[in-house]
Amino acid sequence: MSGAPRELTVELGERSYPIYIGEGVLDEAGNLFTERGISKKSPLMIITDANVAERHLGHLAEVLTSAGFTVVTAVVPAGESSKSLTELERLIGIALEHGLDRKSAIVALGGGVVGDLAGFVAASFMRGIKFVQVPTTILAHDSSVGGKVAVNHPLAKNIIGAFHQPELVLYDLKTLQTLPEREVKAGLSEVVKHGLIWDASFVTWCDENADKLTALDPDALGYALYKGCSVKAAVVSKDERENDLRAILNLGHTIGHALEAVAGYGELLHGEAIAIGMVGAARLAVRLGASEEVYTVTKHVLQRVGLPVRLPAHLATDEIMRAMMHDKKFQEGTMVFIVPTAIGVVEINKSVSTSLIREIVEQLKQEAI
Amino acid sequence: MSGAPRELTVELGERSYPIYIGEGVLDEAGNLFTERGISKKSPLMIITDANVAERHLGHLAEVLTSAGFTVVTAVVPAGESSKSLTELERLIGIALEHGLDRKSAIVALGGGVVGDLAGFVAASFMRGIKFVQVPTTILAHDSSVGGKVAVNHPLAKNIIGAFHQPELVLYDLKTLQTLPEREVKAGLSEVVKHGLIWDASFVTWCDENADKLTALDPDALGYALYKGCSVKAAVVSKDERENDLRAILNLGHTIGHALEAVAGYGELLHGEAIAIGMVGAARLAVRLGASEEVYTVTKHVLQRVGLPVRLPAHLATDEIMRAMMHDKKFQEGTMVFIVPTAIGVVEINKSVSTSLIREIVEQLKQEAI
Repeated sequence: MSGAPRELTVELGERSYPIYIGEGVLDEAGNLFTERGISKKSPLMIITDANVAERHLGHLAEVLTSAGFTVVTAVVPAGESSKSLTELERLIGIALEHGLDRKSAIVALGGGVVGDLAGFVAASFMRGIKFVQVPTTILAHDSSVGGKVAVNHPLAKNIIGAFHQPELVLYDLKTLQTLPEREVKAGLSEVVKHGLIWDASFVTWCDENADKLTALDPDALGYALYKGCSVKAAVVSKDERENDLRAILNLGHTIGHALEAVAGYGELLHGEAIAIGMVGAARLAVRLGASEEVYTVTKHVLQRVGLPVRLPAHLATDEIMRAMMHDKKFQEGTMVFIVPTAIGVVEINKSVSTSLIREIVEQLKQEAI
Repeated sequence: MSGAPRELTVELGERSYPIYIGEGVLDEAGNLFTERGISKKSPLMIITDANVAERHLGHLAEVLTSAGFTVVTAVVPAGESSKSLTELERLIGIALEHGLDRKSAIVALGGGVVGDLAGFVAASFMRGIKFVQVPTTILAHDSSVGGKVAVNHPLAKNIIGAFHQPELVLYDLKTLQTLPEREVKAGLSEVVKHGLIWDASFVTWCDENADKLTALDPDALGYALYKGCSVKAAVVSKDERENDLRAILNLGHTIGHALEAVAGYGELLHGEAIAIGMVGAARLAVRLGASEEVYTVTKHVLQRVGLPVRLPAHLATDEIMRAMMHDKKFQEGTMVFIVPTAIGVVEINKSVSTSLIREIVEQLKQEAI
């Protein structure tokens, strides 16, 4: 491995776990799994998607087999549609056929879809077995930390799930080198978000290093993912089950999720939709009294890493509003929004009026680019 | 309500919860729900099956509505086949359509099937919402306490689930008065089990009061359920997630589950299969050195409450053995059995040989009745 990996810990008492970020950390999977108590006596199952399987499954399976683990593999179709109860049932069937037991582990090799799905397999199989996250996208630096796992229901995303923390997260920068450019940029959206909610100096750093990040410079990328994971870990440590603070991680997501739903999954990548949502949240912040700078800096840094900031005009405002009303972050009819009060600081505003949001959505369609 | 209800607490730190047992406790549901923090601002959903719906759904819904709760109801077909991911998805669709949110609660009104299914809805909907158990069978005194919830996979029972504790358990003895005689007796199987694993004097009491129990005498039944729930609560308090001690609750279940699977769900009720399994465990105990009395008392008390003790001869031993090998209690290839070393005392024996179990299964087919 070139250079020592960065390491950090998600502090959750007896559920604490380490994150390793570096080039070639997958080569060390055998030792790291053993250190974390993954049993060699029971088979483990790697779940991945068809795209990632082609590039990385052979390598990870080989490393683990060489280290003495019994490895079962399961490949799901790439894409959001795999986050279904149908796929869950199929995967649990494979686990049963291959003799996985209560001491087995599930390894999620892939992006957010694979992590969420495999995580819910681990959470629900025999009422919960061990779980390892091996993210292979930039976006997954967010979803792989914190234990939120889920599948979709035909009526709503991520509505069937659990809080199930991994035993460890192994983030090999080498797996990121083959990502398509659009996915790289979309992934950086959540990296920037972690700066916007928690750390103004990291937002400045992202601005200054935007070109290196989009070019996948390993050192810049390693640092950015380390910082992003650190913010996520700090928030999750304080509020594992999203009773209050953890909601700040949803900056940009209320509008973003609605855009994804209305656009049809695929037209807008998650990170792209969230970027537009964060510009919306910044506009909202200014309307609620924050400095104009909150909006200009937010928009600028997102554009620097190549993200869209204008809402596609053909998406109907009525439909976007309707989609938002179904969002599970609306508690007891109150409209909850994460609002940046300054760069690096957000608040949870529980009384934002629907009509103001509608105005913001309209303005986002006119956003200068 | 006639007479004060019996009350006990499942001690689980911040997840502790009360169990109320008595005639007419359902009439108090409004106050008891409120005491336990169930919100009136969010709709709650009662899940029940077609049989129970006819008898008790109207009453419970009326009590809760009068108390100011918004009540959504969902009815599933009676029987084990409702414990499926298909039914889970349908119920979560109903929850979404009726605006349930993170502060809503799921109420399981029914026997073990309803409790397990509704409990997993509560565990997985929005990653976990509140949950109330309202058992309406004797058997459910066992499954309604302790937080084990699950649905079935085509290849294995209870393999997709969670540990999700209820906020409270409301046990109205009036709901038991309409149970068919065969179900009453089958339900007493788990009551007797709680004596056999934990409390010899309660086994004697069951023997002496067997006629009252099968006749559904309210006072005897209330006491028996109170004792059964107390044993379950004590065990669960010490080992919530079944790391060790909780396994003793599986007395009779390794053989019992195999019999249920081979007989086809329905020929043997769960309690009947477990009764035969407990006689098998007692026979095993004697073979491993326990006093003959362990076998004679176990068999006697089960017969006193009208339970079968002989394994139906037409069930193929090979198939029973195969079904046992798939049981999730077999860790890392080792055969685990719960063995009574005396009446009221059990041990977890992790090295029982397959050939000895085969002998026991054969003997159970010859059991004198």
